[in-house]
Amino acid sequence: MTSYELLCRDPSSAARRGRLQTRRGPVETPAFMPVGTQGTVKAMLPETLQELGAQILLGNTYHLFLRPGHERIARLGGLHRFMHWDGPILTDSGGFQVFSLGKLRKIDEAGVRFQSHLDGSAQVLTPESSIAIQQALDSDVIMVFDECIPYPAERAYVADSTARSMRWAARCKAAHQPDGSALFGIVQGGMHADLRRRSVEELLAIGFDGYALGGLSVGEEAALMYQVMDWTLPLLPDSQPRYVMGVGTPENLVEGVRRGVDLFDCVMPTRNARNGVLFTHFGRLSIKQARYQDDAGPIDPACDCYVCRHYSRAYLRHLYQCNEILAAMLNTHHNLHYYLGLMARMRQALEQGRFAAFCQDFYQRRSSAETDCG
Amino acid sequence: MTSYELLCRDPSSAARRGRLQTRRGPVETPAFMPVGTQGTVKAMLPETLQELGAQILLGNTYHLFLRPGHERIARLGGLHRFMHWDGPILTDSGGFQVFSLGKLRKIDEAGVRFQSHLDGSAQVLTPESSIAIQQALDSDVIMVFDECIPYPAERAYVADSTARSMRWAARCKAAHQPDGSALFGIVQGGMHADLRRRSVEELLAIGFDGYALGGLSVGEEAALMYQVMDWTLPLLPDSQPRYVMGVGTPENLVEGVRRGVDLFDCVMPTRNARNGVLFTHFGRLSIKQARYQDDAGPIDPACDCYVCRHYSRAYLRHLYQCNEILAAMLNTHHNLHYYLGLMARMRQALEQGRFAAFCQDFYQRRSSAETDCG
Ligand SMILES: [Zn+2]
Ligand SMILES: [Zn+2]
Repeated sequence: MTSYELLCRDPSSAARRGRLQTRRGPVETPAFMPVGTQGTVKAMLPETLQELGAQILLGNTYHLFLRPGHERIARLGGLHRFMHWDGPILTDSGGFQVFSLGKLRKIDEAGVRFQSHLDGSAQVLTPESSIAIQQALDSDVIMVFDECIPYPAERAYVADSTARSMRWAARCKAAHQPDGSALFGIVQGGMHADLRRRSVEELLAIGFDGYALGGLSVGEEAALMYQVMDWTLPLLPDSQPRYVMGVGTPENLVEGVRRGVDLFDCVMPTRNARNGVLFTHFGRLSIKQARYQDDAGPIDPACDCYVCRHYSRAYLRHLYQCNEILAAMLNTHHNLHYYLGLMARMRQALEQGRFAAFCQDFYQRRSSAETDCG
Repeated sequence: MTSYELLCRDPSSAARRGRLQTRRGPVETPAFMPVGTQGTVKAMLPETLQELGAQILLGNTYHLFLRPGHERIARLGGLHRFMHWDGPILTDSGGFQVFSLGKLRKIDEAGVRFQSHLDGSAQVLTPESSIAIQQALDSDVIMVFDECIPYPAERAYVADSTARSMRWAARCKAAHQPDGSALFGIVQGGMHADLRRRSVEELLAIGFDGYALGGLSVGEEAALMYQVMDWTLPLLPDSQPRYVMGVGTPENLVEGVRRGVDLFDCVMPTRNARNGVLFTHFGRLSIKQARYQDDAGPIDPACDCYVCRHYSRAYLRHLYQCNEILAAMLNTHHNLHYYLGLMARMRQALEQGRFAAFCQDFYQRRSSAETDCG
């Protein structure tokens, strides 16, 4: 029921324009998925997400498993109905959050035992239970349960962890019940070309509806992230979608698309918004700074979003200083408009055969103009 | 430029349907004003307020004076432009907040010296500066600077304070520069019929565009509040609007309208929303309760608002438990829909000559149905 259609290629790079068909409708790629950790993209109405061009949301299995519980969500008609979002939803496997718990978790071949961050209760996630939870949530794109390897890490640890994640991937494939949802494998292998290659080969042997690159954006330099993409992405089949997990900055998105990535997710636009950091065509801007207190201009003069059309930097700074809920609402709106608009502009440039010119313009605007926080 | 038109009277009570003309358009009365303390009605977009039927907002002089400063707002084009609200705005005088500061303030005939709750800095508000601040904000309906007398209070204190507030009212009238804005006097006098009467007489002698009842909803029983209304409202001229400040519950609104009140403001719908307390046709509901965790129904089956059409009690409880911003957004939306809808239904009942039947139905629904928090 899930399929990927390659619509056109960029002549100057590995970038591609495609369409991911899910059982809840198409996703025009390359696409960015806003993150809805606890059954809501923080501070946004679903209708507004749709207006901004969001096509697919990401839900977090770990959080929803612990609260309100996947069985409760299933009883209430599934995650889409629960959160009033009719479009496709991709769920992560819970692995990333569980492995982030540090001392609170213990891993073995069966899976991971851990303590809930909410109440300290003992919990278990296994490849099989992760898939069952995601299917109970009624996810449209399900991710295999894996370990997101920290960075830096010993090569021996990376090799062992990756081998185990590949065995878990096979168990996830076996556990996935046919219901029209897609199942994506996740390439691990740390920052090692040979381990990444072996991981791809093992996943391809199992066979998935799409392939993700995991273990990136974990503290490595951007150049190393791109290096890993360069090693790995060419090994993946053209006929299936490619997703780089947890990435990233606007620059990361452009560089990912250039290398042939179709899907991205990241908390940056939403989390930064709540911290008063706004994305613009000329770089980032920290609205809390006193220099904006009398600034009658919009966040970004080149932005035509609702926020930039109606509110001044001075007002947004005031709301931020007052810790007003409207600050989070308006900042998130603008940042998601920027991220989703960036993806739309890349898709259009690909369709019109001018992606190279797009990239040049993207970098030129950022280098030529002021930016207050890098 | 400001005028009040009495459109029709209820044959069974003192209730009346009217229209307050302000320089920024009409307000159909009786009306409820959502409170926008710091230049935003918390968790609401201005467009949504308009859709919900808000006609006029209340802004807080004390808060805006301290942050971001009325001179800054004036430089940025006034409060309407600052907060993206084109409709009328009524501002309080700052008196209520300053007098709430307790030990941090000192009062004499000139005005009030106080310490800012933000940084402890020494500040002064006088009748003249309060009016100047409200005019700098570009308020459409300006309130006189007065003392909101605490309850209970010694009669001697109430008499002295009220006399001073009346002298201040005259100074406010003298300070008010003609710019098309309305200036409303505020009746004080505590819970004493004779002091209320004297306060009305003194205000009428000065002459204002409208009259407010202050010093209510300060901890007294509802019956005493209605008693003060009964003493005071008949003394006010039919030809001018009447506003009861800081009131109140849905029952208070119905009882106020029944007694001839035209305008109300209160933080109840917005503040309670953020605390998970929701208003319904059958009473209040506290969404945090575990009994709602599997409840697929809407907040209020008799409500047709956006929230009740699309979200379950179970989802709203989940959002509240997770401290999600969307909880405040959706709960505030529903509560303001309830408050503004209640006013609209009262206006319609008055137009159709069936206000008595409306009141009967209002109380019947509440007594017949379940309610979980009174
Ligand atoms: Zn914008
Ligand atoms: Zn509702």
